[in-house]
Amino acid sequence: MTKIKKSLHTELGHSTPDKITVRGRDLPSEILGHLNLGDMAFLELTGRVPTPQESITFNAIVVTLVEHGITPSALVARLTYAGAPEALQAAVGAGLCGLGSVFVGSTEGAARMLYEAIPPGTQPTRPLADLAREIVAAYRARKEIVPGLGHPLHKPIDPRTPRLFQIAAENGLSSHYVALMQAVQAEAERVSGKSLPINATGAIGAIAAEFGFPWRIIRGFGVMARAIGLVGHILEEIDDPMGVEIWQRVEREAGGPRQD
Amino acid sequence: MTKIKKSLHTELGHSTPDKITVRGRDLPSEILGHLNLGDMAFLELTGRVPTPQESITFNAIVVTLVEHGITPSALVARLTYAGAPEALQAAVGAGLCGLGSVFVGSTEGAARMLYEAIPPGTQPTRPLADLAREIVAAYRARKEIVPGLGHPLHKPIDPRTPRLFQIAAENGLSSHYVALMQAVQAEAERVSGKSLPINATGAIGAIAAEFGFPWRIIRGFGVMARAIGLVGHILEEIDDPMGVEIWQRVEREAGGPRQD
Amino acid sequence: MTKIKKSLHTELGHSTPDKITVRGRDLPSEILGHLNLGDMAFLELTGRVPTPQESITFNAIVVTLVEHGITPSALVARLTYAGAPEALQAAVGAGLCGLGSVFVGSTEGAARMLYEAIPPGTQPTRPLADLAREIVAAYRARKEIVPGLGHPLHKPIDPRTPRLFQIAAENGLSSHYVALMQAVQAEAERVSGKSLPINATGAIGAIAAEFGFPWRIIRGFGVMARAIGLVGHILEEIDDPMGVEIWQRVEREAGGPRQD
Amino acid sequence: MTKIKKSLHTELGHSTPDKITVRGRDLPSEILGHLNLGDMAFLELTGRVPTPQESITFNAIVVTLVEHGITPSALVARLTYAGAPEALQAAVGAGLCGLGSVFVGSTEGAARMLYEAIPPGTQPTRPLADLAREIVAAYRARKEIVPGLGHPLHKPIDPRTPRLFQIAAENGLSSHYVALMQAVQAEAERVSGKSLPINATGAIGAIAAEFGFPWRIIRGFGVMARAIGLVGHILEEIDDPMGVEIWQRVEREAGGPRQD
Repeated sequence: MTKIKKSLHTELGHSTPDKITVRGRDLPSEILGHLNLGDMAFLELTGRVPTPQESITFNAIVVTLVEHGITPSALVARLTYAGAPEALQAAVGAGLCGLGSVFVGSTEGAARMLYEAIPPGTQPTRPLADLAREIVAAYRARKEIVPGLGHPLHKPIDPRTPRLFQIAAENGLSSHYVALMQAVQAEAERVSGKSLPINATGAIGAIAAEFGFPWRIIRGFGVMARAIGLVGHILEEIDDPMGVEIWQRVEREAGGPRQD
Repeated sequence: MTKIKKSLHTELGHSTPDKITVRGRDLPSEILGHLNLGDMAFLELTGRVPTPQESITFNAIVVTLVEHGITPSALVARLTYAGAPEALQAAVGAGLCGLGSVFVGSTEGAARMLYEAIPPGTQPTRPLADLAREIVAAYRARKEIVPGLGHPLHKPIDPRTPRLFQIAAENGLSSHYVALMQAVQAEAERVSGKSLPINATGAIGAIAAEFGFPWRIIRGFGVMARAIGLVGHILEEIDDPMGVEIWQRVEREAGGPRQD
Repeated sequence: MTKIKKSLHTELGHSTPDKITVRGRDLPSEILGHLNLGDMAFLELTGRVPTPQESITFNAIVVTLVEHGITPSALVARLTYAGAPEALQAAVGAGLCGLGSVFVGSTEGAARMLYEAIPPGTQPTRPLADLAREIVAAYRARKEIVPGLGHPLHKPIDPRTPRLFQIAAENGLSSHYVALMQAVQAEAERVSGKSLPINATGAIGAIAAEFGFPWRIIRGFGVMARAIGLVGHILEEIDDPMGVEIWQRVEREAGGPRQD
Repeated sequence: MTKIKKSLHTELGHSTPDKITVRGRDLPSEILGHLNLGDMAFLELTGRVPTPQESITFNAIVVTLVEHGITPSALVARLTYAGAPEALQAAVGAGLCGLGSVFVGSTEGAARMLYEAIPPGTQPTRPLADLAREIVAAYRARKEIVPGLGHPLHKPIDPRTPRLFQIAAENGLSSHYVALMQAVQAEAERVSGKSLPINATGAIGAIAAEFGFPWRIIRGFGVMARAIGLVGHILEEIDDPMGVEIWQRVEREAGGPRQD
């Protein structure tokens, strides 16, 4: 190949005939049997093994996102598997494609909002209540909803949020980002007069900010966790399928004369 | 919708306003803070929490599959992200689509081969050496390679295999499927005269059979693990991109006159 | 990059600052305004512009596969779009992922079956009825269904098949592969005693064989055509959505107590 | 299923045992043999058969987008196929996933920009030069690039643009949207002092606006067209593969010590 502008390099993994290294650690002797899957994800993303406190908290975050019943992504994986059971990987891949702005994006939205108020690596220079007031006012001025607040089903609280905040606090990972998220909630409820619980994506966004993860990668927590969940849905689909039945019901109804 | 042939049901997850249940367990109080991500995957797939021994072994299996450097799936995720950075989930989804028969399929192939010789839930009724002889002879007669043996780079042994077998043995998960895999290896080397190490997919297929996982879902271990790895590759691509450089090098070379 | 084993080359497209060439033809002056989209697909796949007869027949084949109402692939595209409307391309990509062995694979299966009896580029050396007898007997012996025969809804004939065969015949593209497909149908009906219409995928497989397309690429006709159809479904979903309603219906039913 | 909030309906396709209807037309007798693939796409998207002038112009638009040599999407399809040749559909699906904001999004961006200045179905109420001045000033104030202008390779003109505009003009589909696009270009060149050709995505966005297509669906033209191109790349990959070679070159370089 001609004209090389930039050399190619990865720090993630490397293999020689007798050695496999991931993030600088020997996979067989230093990782296998020592790290659980959540710790491995942490190592993959940060280049270091989590402390026990980080391990518990990070695992809790990603475990939260594995399974939430019949979601559009689960339906997509099941319907895709029904047509191509020889390509389980494509059914999972298709299921992930819908984890976009509507259902999962608010995790990164919450983290980004918090980082804009308190840049990563800095301390807040003004009272959190003031920051919260400005944040909520800005979203209201743009007529946008505040990311991480409110839930169509889980009212008046999202049961995952207090538990996640408890785990973060017990493990030293609850500081000004969690506090600011809570201040934003209080302010949003005050000005709207509505109950606006911090939902799981808001809690996860805030805790991810405590870790210092870049906001652009935070959606990836939901993506990796849901991949696990979708494999679970496909296994259930193999044993007790619903894909073809759903398709046929919809086809009969939607293909007939309009009913409303 | 008219004419319902079959009711729809899932055992995986269920939500009410104040409760989120996964596999019959309360997510906030019984799962978060208690299960790591590998244990959660085990719960999702089997409906029960792993024993400590199962936890170590199952986590080791999936951890093995997270990261293996620049693979085609990593390149696909990076190249897709370069075109659609607003859709990280689709970059991971695209990356998973190639985890098919060529690179990952041998995990399920090995498990299936072992299950055909010793059906799940049964004990071997004949000496493993006899079973191995028949298995190898059958593959040779069909001119197919035996799944789980040989590796283009890791010779004469795949460094993951002895470690995985050690972890399985230490945790009571090494019985006749692992032994049969080893007998198959010995027989394949004997009749071919070549060094044919049990590779990581062969080791994982055998240990997955010790767990009793259905062979159809075993490819899913690689899929869920690689989803984690691909998020790691995308994070590296954000910080130190290679996608556009690769594309441009290939375009220049491939778009020019043929060179051989 | 070190150690180049093979140079990279494409014949498909090439660009210089003032020229864009596709398959050796100047895109602006020789293709745009001259070729319709089906002809362009033909050029892309074969390297030559179709004759008028080939153009009509090939366009008819791919047009057949664009739209067939609410299919699993259409549901997948709609459900994916509901979650990630900013990534229309991923909704189409996800929808395509299920066009596998169950719904679309029989097109390539039919072509492959015909090519095995009469290798590409050769003439049949024995009566077609004899070949048909052997084909049907072989499938029955393997307890497999003959690809391209039978349809769950379109009975006793698939209305696309006679029209496609008519177009092929009128345009000089109906020879021994179409005749063999018809002989296979007659034989399969004779030995089974059942009505087994040649379905659209069987007709398309046979006509694709008349063209001489490699069987491995024939699934691609359905894939490219359905991509068009899925864009249509997404446009309808924007104007009159069904994705969220389907999800919510399924979630309510499947998340409740088992009903059968 | 309980609690139906909205009935499900599609106008796209419908089947009974002896009839297949697409957009209200009988597929075998009214579509097959009568419409080419581009016309079928037009019917699918608009509900009507294009006029001869619309047919030529719409086919030219989508034909333009089929093939542009080795793109990231082509690499993704080829690398995916290398790992899962049994799932051609997933290779195409993966390839489409990257057709996002970076490479294809400017088509919809250009149409949206034009529609904001002259709403669909209306006539411009002020001189186009004034509209162009305001548009360019607004993009410059936001420090965003004007969609549809400039090309890294095709300078000083994109050879597709004059040809597409010629076809549109000859067929009565060049009115105020094309004129406004040209006015925007002139203004952008005036204020920047740089050569900024209208690129193919800008030309297509403008002509799509002349047709009146909703801007949200215009990215779909590139998606459907590229699906065809990717099938072509996979066929070439079968005959003359580059995927594995690219992977191995990158792995060797990127897995070694950093070189810059």
